[in-house]
Amino acid sequence: MKKGIVFVLSGPAGSGKSTVRERLMQKGRNFHYSVSDTTRKIRGAEKDGVDYRFITKKEFEDGIAAGNYYEYAQYTGEYYGTPVSQLTPYIEKGVNVILEIEVVGAMQVKKRDKNAVLVMLLPPSYAVLEKRLRDRGTESEEKILKRLARSREELQYFDEYDYFLLNEDGKIDECVRQLEMIAEAESNKTKNNPDFPNEFFK
Amino acid sequence: MKKGIVFVLSGPAGSGKSTVRERLMQKGRNFHYSVSDTTRKIRGAEKDGVDYRFITKKEFEDGIAAGNYYEYAQYTGEYYGTPVSQLTPYIEKGVNVILEIEVVGAMQVKKRDKNAVLVMLLPPSYAVLEKRLRDRGTESEEKILKRLARSREELQYFDEYDYFLLNEDGKIDECVRQLEMIAEAESNKTKNNPDFPNEFFK
Repeated sequence: MKKGIVFVLSGPAGSGKSTVRERLMQKGRNFHYSVSDTTRKIRGAEKDGVDYRFITKKEFEDGIAAGNYYEYAQYTGEYYGTPVSQLTPYIEKGVNVILEIEVVGAMQVKKRDKNAVLVMLLPPSYAVLEKRLRDRGTESEEKILKRLARSREELQYFDEYDYFLLNEDGKIDECVRQLEMIAEAESNKTKNNPDFPNEFFK
Repeated sequence: MKKGIVFVLSGPAGSGKSTVRERLMQKGRNFHYSVSDTTRKIRGAEKDGVDYRFITKKEFEDGIAAGNYYEYAQYTGEYYGTPVSQLTPYIEKGVNVILEIEVVGAMQVKKRDKNAVLVMLLPPSYAVLEKRLRDRGTESEEKILKRLARSREELQYFDEYDYFLLNEDGKIDECVRQLEMIAEAESNKTKNNPDFPNEFFK
């Protein structure tokens, strides 16, 4: 049976990755969105079990010890991780899984699954990224500078990703369409269809 | 400057690869079709310089000695090859090149260019392939059996190809669309855009 493919979507704050992922999910394609666990506090309109599963540090560390995480990482003192249960059962059933995770976790996924597809979402330039972060108008200068510094670190992983996608202002539909094309192309990879030659001669 | 990408299209006789390639070219996308040299005789409606460049054995072997071929192979005593001049200048100018070549040549391209994209075009099954070859009604039983035997050999290279495309009866447009999607996805590969991070921070 044909397995599902793991798609990792990463990108700096301000790249629009949540919006792109939500639009992709709305299209009702063969995707499961993997809900991560985190120990950080719930924010604004976030819903427990939808955006993240919000758990305690103790619960997260017990999960690590039990081998329940496919990948995990720590940022600013909080844990973020993908439970195996959000990934493996779907892949086995032939459903693609999309993870919206940071670069450190993405590298763990890449190591565990050679067929995982890593996509980095980016604004057209650093200048645009900075403008987007400032235009939000909700964050302190200190936080904006931290996010910008972090984006520089993230770009260092560019070569480790398979694809990059530009999310230009006002062109989010085009960006989602390109992500769909990547998914469709990947499903035509020979390595994702190892049984085909046998079926061909049946 | 962004370089063009080499796309190799292979597939058994009866897979429809010439038709798929012609339809792709008609769409006027950023593709150059690489016209191969061959020493075999011109057939039917073929045009010299369009389908192949038809040359003598002496000319071909002089070309090999001069290093003029990007790849070449021999089938049933005749040479087939891709002149460097059909490929390198286009890639350097950022134009994608499509080669319609056999598995042996494809392996040479793969060795020379890590970024080359190998696509194998296939009918849905061996039974369909056999039916297509017989329905042509123009070839001897011996020739049909030879072509079928050769298709078995070609399928052994399945894993060496990056992608496979099914060309189902009456669905050639779908097949061309998928080839276009592969091309678009490949143009979003980080390895095909190594200068992006520098441009990003400019």
